[in-house]
Amino acid sequence: MAQTHPTSSIWIEPGIDDSVKIIDQRTLPHHVQIVTLRKVEEAATAIRDMLVRGAPLIGVTAAFGMWLALRENPNKSVLEILELSGKQLLATRPTAVNLQWAIGEMRYALTGIESKETAIKRGLEKAIEIRDHDIDTCRKIGEHGVGLIAEVFKRTKKTVNILTHCNAGWLACVKWGTATSPIYKAQEQGIPIHVWVDETRPRNQGASLTAWELGNQNIPHSVITDNAGGHFMQQGKVDLCFVGSDRTTRTGDVANKIGTYLKALAAHDNRVPFYVCLPSSTIDWNMKDGLNEIPIEERDEEEVSRISGLWNDRIVSVKLMPQDSPAANPGFDITPARLVSGLVTERGICRANEEGLKKLFPERN
Amino acid sequence: MAQTHPTSSIWIEPGIDDSVKIIDQRTLPHHVQIVTLRKVEEAATAIRDMLVRGAPLIGVTAAFGMWLALRENPNKSVLEILELSGKQLLATRPTAVNLQWAIGEMRYALTGIESKETAIKRGLEKAIEIRDHDIDTCRKIGEHGVGLIAEVFKRTKKTVNILTHCNAGWLACVKWGTATSPIYKAQEQGIPIHVWVDETRPRNQGASLTAWELGNQNIPHSVITDNAGGHFMQQGKVDLCFVGSDRTTRTGDVANKIGTYLKALAAHDNRVPFYVCLPSSTIDWNMKDGLNEIPIEERDEEEVSRISGLWNDRIVSVKLMPQDSPAANPGFDITPARLVSGLVTERGICRANEEGLKKLFPERN
Repeated sequence: MAQTHPTSSIWIEPGIDDSVKIIDQRTLPHHVQIVTLRKVEEAATAIRDMLVRGAPLIGVTAAFGMWLALRENPNKSVLEILELSGKQLLATRPTAVNLQWAIGEMRYALTGIESKETAIKRGLEKAIEIRDHDIDTCRKIGEHGVGLIAEVFKRTKKTVNILTHCNAGWLACVKWGTATSPIYKAQEQGIPIHVWVDETRPRNQGASLTAWELGNQNIPHSVITDNAGGHFMQQGKVDLCFVGSDRTTRTGDVANKIGTYLKALAAHDNRVPFYVCLPSSTIDWNMKDGLNEIPIEERDEEEVSRISGLWNDRIVSVKLMPQDSPAANPGFDITPARLVSGLVTERGICRANEEGLKKLFPERN
Repeated sequence: MAQTHPTSSIWIEPGIDDSVKIIDQRTLPHHVQIVTLRKVEEAATAIRDMLVRGAPLIGVTAAFGMWLALRENPNKSVLEILELSGKQLLATRPTAVNLQWAIGEMRYALTGIESKETAIKRGLEKAIEIRDHDIDTCRKIGEHGVGLIAEVFKRTKKTVNILTHCNAGWLACVKWGTATSPIYKAQEQGIPIHVWVDETRPRNQGASLTAWELGNQNIPHSVITDNAGGHFMQQGKVDLCFVGSDRTTRTGDVANKIGTYLKALAAHDNRVPFYVCLPSSTIDWNMKDGLNEIPIEERDEEEVSRISGLWNDRIVSVKLMPQDSPAANPGFDITPARLVSGLVTERGICRANEEGLKKLFPERN
C-alpha cells in the first residue's frame, strides 16, 4: 500500500515496523506532510488534533490505533489493552459515531483471543479489513450517486454544476470519499462537471482539502465563501448538492459540518436536489429526532478568531478579530430530513425517512 | 466634535486648522489609527484606498473633501474648484451612488457664490449638514427599531439575542449605523442584549468592524462563522435579525452583503423575525424585481483566496487555498421580500412590499 503521491488518506507502509501512515491534513493544501503512527497515543492525538478528520477516516485510524496498542503493551492482557485503548480513542472526538463503531468492531474481532501474538495478527487483519470495507463502501456510494449526475447531463447536455460543503472526500475517508465519490465517478464516465467548493469556515476544509483533492484529479472547481452558495442557486448555477454526514438518524435527519443546514435551505428554496452521501455505519438507528437528540460539539473559539494560511512560504495563524471579542463555535448543525432529497448509501439511494431507510436496510426493522 | 475614543466615523476637530478626522478602517480591529485630512487629495485617497467605506460615509467624506478644496486653493475661482474637486472625488469609486449625490449637493449649495470666504463658510456648513442628516437618519432608524427589541424583552424578560451580518454600523455611516442603531438604542434603554456577529467572509467586516464597534461600546457579543447562524436559530438562541441593505426595490427585495439571503432563509424556517434597516436613500423606486433587476458585483478572487489578519503585531495577508484553484466572489445577494419581516426606515417600520413602502413614502406614489 506504499504511496509516494498519496490518493488515499491512511495506509500501512511495509517495512521495518509496518508503520501506519497518514497525511497531516492540517498543513494542506500548502504542504503535503506524511506522518507515521507507531503508538496508540499517536493515533489518538492524530484524531484529537485533527491531523485526520472525517467520520470514516477517524474510524479507520482508531482501528489501526488499537492494533498499535496491542503491539506496544507486552505486559498487559489483550482484554485490558482493548478496554484501555478503546476508552482512550473514544474520548478524542465525542460526537463521532464511527469511532465507536470501529472500536466495537475491533473488540468484537478480538474477543476471546488470549495470545498476544494472535491478537496482533488478527488486529492488523481486522484493521485492514475495516479500511478495505470503507474503500468498498465509498466506491459503491459513487456508483449509486453518479446516476444522479448522469441524469442531469442527459437532460441538459451541459456541464453539471455540483455544490459541496466541507470535505467529504477521500481525505475524510480512505479512498473515493462520500460526497465526492459520485463526482470522481462522473469524471471516470466523461461527464463534464464543475464543483462549487464551499470554503467551510472555521477550519476551511473545503478551500484547503476539497479544492486540493479536486485540483489533484483535474476536476474543474471554484472555491466560494460559505455565504455565496445561495446566490449561485438563485442564479440557476447549481444543479445538484452533495454533502456528507457525520451522523444520520433513522428518520433521515442529518448532522453534518456547521453550515450544511443553510445550504439545504437554499437548495430547497431553489428546487436544487440536495443529496447526503453516507456510509450506513454513520446511521444512528437509535435516534429519531436529530434536532433534539444529536449532541453538537462546541469547539474552540480560536478556530473562529484565527485562521491559518500561507505567508512567505510559511504557514502562519493570523488573528481575525478584536482581542477582547469572544467567539462561539458549534461544530455541526442538523439538516432536517424534510430538506434532504435523498440519502446516497452503499446499498443505493433512498428517501430521507424511516421508510426509505428501512427498505434499504430491512435487517434494521 | 472632538473625540478621543471614537463613536463616529468622521468629524471635525476644532483647533488650529479645523481638520477633518477619520478612522483608517483598513487596520481595524487591530490598530485604531485616526487620520487627519487637510487637502482634497487626502480625502480622495481615503475614499479610493478604502480608509473609509460604506455608502453614507463615502458621501460625507467627499462633501468635506470639497470644503478642503475650497480652503486650499486661494487662486482659483469657486466654480473652478467645485468643478475640479468634484471630478477628482467622483473618480475614486465610480460605482458609489452616494458619492455622486453628496458632490451634487455641495455644488448645488455653493452655486452662485463668488466670494471665496463665503464659499468656504457655506461649504463647511453644508458638509456638516450632510453629516448631520446622516446621523439623524440613522438615529431615527434606531428609535423605530428599538421597539422590536423592547417587545421581545417585555415578553421574555431575558437577554435579547440579535443576529447581524456584515457591518451596517456607524463605521459605514457616521454615527449609530443602520442595523446597529436599534442595538445601540436598546443599550441606552437598559435592555439586556447580546449580539451574534457573523464574521462575513470574504472581507470579514463583521469580525473586524462590527465586533470592534460593539466591543468599544461594551455591548455583549460573540463572533460566529457565517455557517453558524442557522444552528443558533434552530436552538432558539436568536430572537431577532437586523441587517442592512445596499439597495432595496420598491417591492421590498433586498440586495445586501453576500450571505444575507441564507440567514433570511434560516430565520424564516425558525420563525425568527428578520428586519432590514435602511435609509430611504437606498430604496430604488425604479426596481420591482430584485433577483432579475439588481446587478450583482463580481469582486476580486483574491478576497476569497486570501485573508488579512494580525500575526506578530503585523497585519499580513495569508493564502487560504491551493495555488491553482480558482475562486468566485459575488459581492451581494438578493433576499426576496417574502423572507423579510419588515423594513426599518427613518420614517418607521413597514412590511417589505410595495404597499408597505408606499404608506411610509406616499410622495412616491
